[in-house]
Amino acid sequence: MNYQRTTRAANELREITIQPNFLPHADGSVLISCGNTKVICTATIDQNVPSFLRGKGEGWVTAEYGMLPASTQSRMKREAASGKQSGRTQEIQRLIGRSLRACVDMKKLGERQILIDCDVIQADGGTRTTSITGAFVALKMAIQKMLNDGRLPETPLIGSVAAVSVGVVGGVPLLDLDYPEDSNCDSDVNLVMLNADKIIEIQGTAEGAAFSLAELQTLIALGQKGITQLAQLQQKALRTI
Amino acid sequence: MNYQRTTRAANELREITIQPNFLPHADGSVLISCGNTKVICTATIDQNVPSFLRGKGEGWVTAEYGMLPASTQSRMKREAASGKQSGRTQEIQRLIGRSLRACVDMKKLGERQILIDCDVIQADGGTRTTSITGAFVALKMAIQKMLNDGRLPETPLIGSVAAVSVGVVGGVPLLDLDYPEDSNCDSDVNLVMLNADKIIEIQGTAEGAAFSLAELQTLIALGQKGITQLAQLQQKALRTI
Amino acid sequence: MNYQRTTRAANELREITIQPNFLPHADGSVLISCGNTKVICTATIDQNVPSFLRGKGEGWVTAEYGMLPASTQSRMKREAASGKQSGRTQEIQRLIGRSLRACVDMKKLGERQILIDCDVIQADGGTRTTSITGAFVALKMAIQKMLNDGRLPETPLIGSVAAVSVGVVGGVPLLDLDYPEDSNCDSDVNLVMLNADKIIEIQGTAEGAAFSLAELQTLIALGQKGITQLAQLQQKALRTI
Amino acid sequence: MNYQRTTRAANELREITIQPNFLPHADGSVLISCGNTKVICTATIDQNVPSFLRGKGEGWVTAEYGMLPASTQSRMKREAASGKQSGRTQEIQRLIGRSLRACVDMKKLGERQILIDCDVIQADGGTRTTSITGAFVALKMAIQKMLNDGRLPETPLIGSVAAVSVGVVGGVPLLDLDYPEDSNCDSDVNLVMLNADKIIEIQGTAEGAAFSLAELQTLIALGQKGITQLAQLQQKALRTI
Amino acid sequence: MNYQRTTRAANELREITIQPNFLPHADGSVLISCGNTKVICTATIDQNVPSFLRGKGEGWVTAEYGMLPASTQSRMKREAASGKQSGRTQEIQRLIGRSLRACVDMKKLGERQILIDCDVIQADGGTRTTSITGAFVALKMAIQKMLNDGRLPETPLIGSVAAVSVGVVGGVPLLDLDYPEDSNCDSDVNLVMLNADKIIEIQGTAEGAAFSLAELQTLIALGQKGITQLAQLQQKALRTI
Amino acid sequence: MNYQRTTRAANELREITIQPNFLPHADGSVLISCGNTKVICTATIDQNVPSFLRGKGEGWVTAEYGMLPASTQSRMKREAASGKQSGRTQEIQRLIGRSLRACVDMKKLGERQILIDCDVIQADGGTRTTSITGAFVALKMAIQKMLNDGRLPETPLIGSVAAVSVGVVGGVPLLDLDYPEDSNCDSDVNLVMLNADKIIEIQGTAEGAAFSLAELQTLIALGQKGITQLAQLQQKALRTI
Repeated sequence: MNYQRTTRAANELREITIQPNFLPHADGSVLISCGNTKVICTATIDQNVPSFLRGKGEGWVTAEYGMLPASTQSRMKREAASGKQSGRTQEIQRLIGRSLRACVDMKKLGERQILIDCDVIQADGGTRTTSITGAFVALKMAIQKMLNDGRLPETPLIGSVAAVSVGVVGGVPLLDLDYPEDSNCDSDVNLVMLNADKIIEIQGTAEGAAFSLAELQTLIALGQKGITQLAQLQQKALRTI
Repeated sequence: MNYQRTTRAANELREITIQPNFLPHADGSVLISCGNTKVICTATIDQNVPSFLRGKGEGWVTAEYGMLPASTQSRMKREAASGKQSGRTQEIQRLIGRSLRACVDMKKLGERQILIDCDVIQADGGTRTTSITGAFVALKMAIQKMLNDGRLPETPLIGSVAAVSVGVVGGVPLLDLDYPEDSNCDSDVNLVMLNADKIIEIQGTAEGAAFSLAELQTLIALGQKGITQLAQLQQKALRTI
Repeated sequence: MNYQRTTRAANELREITIQPNFLPHADGSVLISCGNTKVICTATIDQNVPSFLRGKGEGWVTAEYGMLPASTQSRMKREAASGKQSGRTQEIQRLIGRSLRACVDMKKLGERQILIDCDVIQADGGTRTTSITGAFVALKMAIQKMLNDGRLPETPLIGSVAAVSVGVVGGVPLLDLDYPEDSNCDSDVNLVMLNADKIIEIQGTAEGAAFSLAELQTLIALGQKGITQLAQLQQKALRTI
Repeated sequence: MNYQRTTRAANELREITIQPNFLPHADGSVLISCGNTKVICTATIDQNVPSFLRGKGEGWVTAEYGMLPASTQSRMKREAASGKQSGRTQEIQRLIGRSLRACVDMKKLGERQILIDCDVIQADGGTRTTSITGAFVALKMAIQKMLNDGRLPETPLIGSVAAVSVGVVGGVPLLDLDYPEDSNCDSDVNLVMLNADKIIEIQGTAEGAAFSLAELQTLIALGQKGITQLAQLQQKALRTI
Repeated sequence: MNYQRTTRAANELREITIQPNFLPHADGSVLISCGNTKVICTATIDQNVPSFLRGKGEGWVTAEYGMLPASTQSRMKREAASGKQSGRTQEIQRLIGRSLRACVDMKKLGERQILIDCDVIQADGGTRTTSITGAFVALKMAIQKMLNDGRLPETPLIGSVAAVSVGVVGGVPLLDLDYPEDSNCDSDVNLVMLNADKIIEIQGTAEGAAFSLAELQTLIALGQKGITQLAQLQQKALRTI
Repeated sequence: MNYQRTTRAANELREITIQPNFLPHADGSVLISCGNTKVICTATIDQNVPSFLRGKGEGWVTAEYGMLPASTQSRMKREAASGKQSGRTQEIQRLIGRSLRACVDMKKLGERQILIDCDVIQADGGTRTTSITGAFVALKMAIQKMLNDGRLPETPLIGSVAAVSVGVVGGVPLLDLDYPEDSNCDSDVNLVMLNADKIIEIQGTAEGAAFSLAELQTLIALGQKGITQLAQLQQKALRTI
């Protein structure tokens, strides 16, 4: 018999809440919850760019990711105490950065950098996709701030970015895996889309069983449906600021 | 003319809230706010003790401290990315650990360790004292859990612990400094007390002007008043769990 | 006008050579060339498993990746001298490890570990996919060695693994990008397949322009064609040992 | 029955010797002995200031602290080999730096930095307070050198700094704890004073039993008595240079 | 009975091959084999000099050394993964750098730096001496390139550099030790010579038994004979570029 | 005109003093002065051996080396603060360890380790050779202690070890170079001998001009003369303990 969810449909997102202005010191910030996964996402405007861009009149967006030690079921080690970020952490923060850069016209942003911080307060699967979805809202808030104070004459945003995970668990394609589902999936796809329409990043991994192109298509369609809803929730949150 | 506070009296605490069970994965957790300073404090029970205690039948309490990069007015560097904890971070987490160990009978705790994590979400002065006050609540919740499930026959707690900062700003002794006050103080004392009665830790620093024993006495009396109130708020929060 | 390759067709691989037994000290080794990209891949049998698997009767496959400083057009810094592996390096070695684990039945491998090393001697694009394709041959050689000396009664391999990059450059879908193509592509997909038939890993990134599901399908089909050829070349190389 | 010292009175310092010019390469240096605790303290003038002070016309004083591996009863690990300074080391060197900055008018010092090094040759309790007392002498020697060669027109020193530890052992308040006393004390206070008169730093810790304000007052009075003697010994040593 | 070699005479080198232009991206490169020891040596021209030489009109030569994990009989740990270079690695790369600097007139080289990389592909004893011998050829190729393109008006080379190991095994002085011989030697001398005539570096170690000056003289004479042959092979390889 | 020393003959050592029992906590210790070079050398007995020797019934001798920041003419950076030991430091401590192992019969030492620490208090050339000469005395003191308390039935020492530097400065062969001589030498040889008779280590470097075998012979003879005197001073110091 196939796996069956008890509290939501296979193609249903978890409950999403996006609370803007969560951290007043940042130029943009949200607390985003996706079920029991909770992430603080902030955007900080930095008037300096990385050295490889100096003097080129172009901007940059980069991201850092962390988890509170007590965010996970069994406490994980504090990376600052271990003295280095794990490979997983680095992989995720590189993904967040690439995903957000895809929606910014760097020439229009001008020679400045936006630093994204995604800090996971509570983890129940999907922390990297939740981070991207929340970080876009924080990023847009920071850009709005610069439009308001005249630092930017026009928006450098070329669209919105949101992300979701999809996967096959017990033979069933599912939208938005929680941690128990993620731990038992056959395959797992993280999907990042521009305007809920085109793919910016796709990362699919066969944890249990390799999958066919047809299965991949099913999963992408499922993910696009979820991303469409996430994009609406992002817009709604942004209207409140 | 001397410095004068506009929104509270010189001997008044900022608004304090203590929200227990903030992070369900931990054995004890609170979100504590002291004005605009907000800290997540968690306690995790670990059945292992540090190697120097193995086989001795005694327990241990230790603490780690961190700040979200966007918790401060201008974003601070992520310590996990820098590859090491600053001297300030290490000093603070050593202080938190020592302070909490002072209220635990390690023989009664038995050969297990309680790991305290204090993560500053928003910083506006007094993060180390707020961490200690919040961490005691998380610690007591973890101990209560072990009393409830029978791992502990009797409480190893020998009292309650709370902390506050006091200082002289513009010639005036003040209770519970916020960040602007702390940055301009003549002297600054962090006070940690057991049962709001006896001193566990006192750390006084003359930032601007060296101070006399008489001034120190005034500050300690002021601090004890604040700690008495904090201890009541801790008890109130613990009654709700 | 669209981009046009001068020395090979859009759907053509670069010249591939796989030279087994390149490093006699390893349990399996190849020098694999994919055009001007050259990687030494080795497999070393280790009778210990990581601590999380101890006593479970299951094996493990893990990978490390490095580049010689002079392998790139302008010399890159030696990671051993910098004191850490870059995020890119860690991301790649995690990908190699996951990809190879997908073709091994860990119970049949038994409680031992196979360490894969992929060291790039010369880099001209596609180093991660070339590493995976070469590493599978080294892995199979190490397993063959254990079948020959009786350490393994039957093969733990459940198929073959190969990988290739595909991407859109100047509007044209291309198989097996070299470095100049990779640097100028609109989108870039790394594809890892089991038995040239099912997907183990897919990592697609829109470097320039987000892409549609239809474009993704075209690229996957192109990649599968290349992987089919690579799998044949792997078999051919393995027949010579 | 209470603890009783055999070789000196409860309110007596250990034998103190301060040997100036111990290391001729430094701008100021002493070997200070406090009983069996021996520390080499040096002051080096550096014409650069930390970046946060550049161009402000103000100076800085900072300190580093270390222990020879064989300085302790059982050899401690060499921090340079471990690759990092312990939290204790960082806490102590921050304390030394703060304490000495309290006696220097940074505007009069001008845009230059004085680097203090305190290296413990032999440890028998009180290494941090002995370091401060010795470092003041080295600091004053370096300033005298700049007054002599005309780099400084007037002294930037606003007083003298000395430090001592006091504590309660077996119920008895004691001045200047040695290592066995420090290991068994109920409470331990490190006191740093300006001109043996006002408090610069006070760090009190209840190792065994929390203490009252009255007990703290007794300890501070005891400490001040010791610091008065230390200040005289500092002056005497400085007269010999 | 004394140790006796089976496949070559006591005063005979292993088979040497030097393949220039092994890595096209570098300014000079060889693959050098000395029996089963194989090293890739490259030279990269860098228009910057270390900070201590800036503005002095003089050049520099420096070296880095590494081993592939699978180059040794039992796989060694990857230094980039461990996060630091071993003492042995640092000692060897300092030796290579010093040895090559001895044949370069730094004023004639001008304010630029040549970075040498020696990466051991396969190790069977003598990796440091083989690295030096190969690195000289790579260095000369890089200098020839600058002579050809007019960056250098005249050669800064003041001679050629080659190196070999000699040692006493089982009482018998041997030229060019392989790994089993090196592991069992009584004494081991690494000799680096300028123009096969004068000593640049000599590093002799009594692994088993201390040796007399007379024994040292015998070993040096044996080494000089080998270095004379190596210098001829270097010249022969350079004639083919 | 050739270089001429003013205060001692070319073949004369600097003034040597060896003060045993300098650090009472160590099992053996000396303060050795060689002119203005001063080093504290200690030996600590450790009942554990490195893991590669466990269970083999053999002992080990290993060494660590450090310099106080203020030991040099211009203050050097503290390695503990930098977070790593320099290549020079590692090279020197490896040399000290190898040199002392050459005089110990590891089977007779039994399964224990002797840790040597050499900490340079003041540096004026020859710190590595002075360290070796002093460390031998500390090592012998530690062994004497184990002979006295019955842990060792017979001495594992097979001779004495001492070291000196020799070099050619301004065309003149000199014994025991000080720092100005060392900085201007044509060539520099560090010589370590067993019983002032046979060579344990020889490290010769042509800093300025490559040297002939004849020149090397002259330097070795000069060094042996100095080592003979050092061995007598070691014996004299050991008679006083």
